[in-house]
Amino acid sequence: MIIIGEKINGFIKRTMEAIEAKDEAYIKELAVKQTAGGADYIDVCAGTMPDVERDTMEWLMNLVQDAVDTPLSVDSSDPQVIVDMLPLAKKPGLVNSISKEAGKTELVFPAIEGTEWKVVALTCNNEGIPNDAETKFEIGKQIIEEAASYGIGLDRIFIDPCVTTLATTQDCLISFIGAMRLLREAYPGVQFTSGLSNISFGMPYRKAINMQFLALALYEGMDSAIIDPMSADMQAVLHSVEALLGKDDYCMNYLSAFREGLFGAK
Amino acid sequence: MIIIGEKINGFIKRTMEAIEAKDEAYIKELAVKQTAGGADYIDVCAGTMPDVERDTMEWLMNLVQDAVDTPLSVDSSDPQVIVDMLPLAKKPGLVNSISKEAGKTELVFPAIEGTEWKVVALTCNNEGIPNDAETKFEIGKQIIEEAASYGIGLDRIFIDPCVTTLATTQDCLISFIGAMRLLREAYPGVQFTSGLSNISFGMPYRKAINMQFLALALYEGMDSAIIDPMSADMQAVLHSVEALLGKDDYCMNYLSAFREGLFGAK
Repeated sequence: MIIIGEKINGFIKRTMEAIEAKDEAYIKELAVKQTAGGADYIDVCAGTMPDVERDTMEWLMNLVQDAVDTPLSVDSSDPQVIVDMLPLAKKPGLVNSISKEAGKTELVFPAIEGTEWKVVALTCNNEGIPNDAETKFEIGKQIIEEAASYGIGLDRIFIDPCVTTLATTQDCLISFIGAMRLLREAYPGVQFTSGLSNISFGMPYRKAINMQFLALALYEGMDSAIIDPMSADMQAVLHSVEALLGKDDYCMNYLSAFREGLFGAK
Repeated sequence: MIIIGEKINGFIKRTMEAIEAKDEAYIKELAVKQTAGGADYIDVCAGTMPDVERDTMEWLMNLVQDAVDTPLSVDSSDPQVIVDMLPLAKKPGLVNSISKEAGKTELVFPAIEGTEWKVVALTCNNEGIPNDAETKFEIGKQIIEEAASYGIGLDRIFIDPCVTTLATTQDCLISFIGAMRLLREAYPGVQFTSGLSNISFGMPYRKAINMQFLALALYEGMDSAIIDPMSADMQAVLHSVEALLGKDDYCMNYLSAFREGLFGAK
């Protein structure tokens, strides 16, 4: 299970406050704590106005790389910003994200061709986010084929089948899982990831839905998730599902995560 | 989703104290609160020494029936006690439970033949609780066939595929789900139930494992569970999984359960 730590993101209010206050200690602490929580990548998203996005990204990336050795997940909706930031990373990490929106793959794939950078690929395009499994599959297929033409294999791609919102789209999980199944059938070895919070938008007590979405997606073979590794709730789901699926010998990971206080503390 | 409320059970310490103190108000409150939490059956288990089990069962059954109209789940390891208690129920309920241990079906099936009583059937026998899906399936099949010879159809049987303990049996969920799949293939329409707590025996922070076991079993089509309907954690899992599976139109059940405070309260 690959964890992409989501906390260093300017769209999160407390993080934005730290960015605006140039609070280096807080940003570094987020990097250290997420790494301690098992993050395999530390996502970095400026979330600011375009005119300062590059400066903010550079500042955040340098702080994270001062604090931890965990690879970066370079997160921007502007593919040119992503491409411009890649040279600042000390080691290959993750591009978050591309999709079939015009210009994204065309800019990012040449930039990571022949490198070890991996990429999150959303199953959306200029027409938006489809909710049916077949269209998600078709977009995923286009991206995988296009990546292959740059020598970027399935081991470097995490497809995010773009879960929508349960409050308005009752079958959004069914479509998400359907897309995973279609893609895995066509491309054995394909990897999947997802953020968790879109699905519960507009609902009360969102964490219940987010937790069970994570559990069911893991059960269906999702390989990765973009989460807060400092969340005891998420850690409890991750470790208990891993154990229930028989993937945790003698429940050793569950027991050690509990002992480290990653979940279950009062 | 059929909920069997588990709280009126002498093996639960607080309930045993109430039984010993003849605390009628506490027992009635458990019946009322579990019914408010959506219990379809109120389980009643004396959990006392054999010499007073019948008297205790009668006292508990009468209290529950004074307090609520919810049918009873008559719970004893002694099939003769179950059979003797059935006439005290004001309406048909649930026998909890039988198995292929010698004497159980032979006593209980004739007693509920031609009635509307339903029955929980454990996939164990005189040799104990098997962990492999095939043996669970074989025992379930024997019970279903034997029930049919008494005119007891699948609509009156809840197979409990007897989950074992994750700490010692890494594949216990896999076997449980495997048995459900084999039985459903052979007997479409078969219903399943399970208690939740055995699986986490010996582990810390058991509720994490119990919650995710419930989520994954529901996802795999478990129709019923023997749970504490007053538990906010269990309610959150039940309602969020139901919504995620697309079975809750406009998330109405989720929203109303939240408003009623069944989960999500601070």
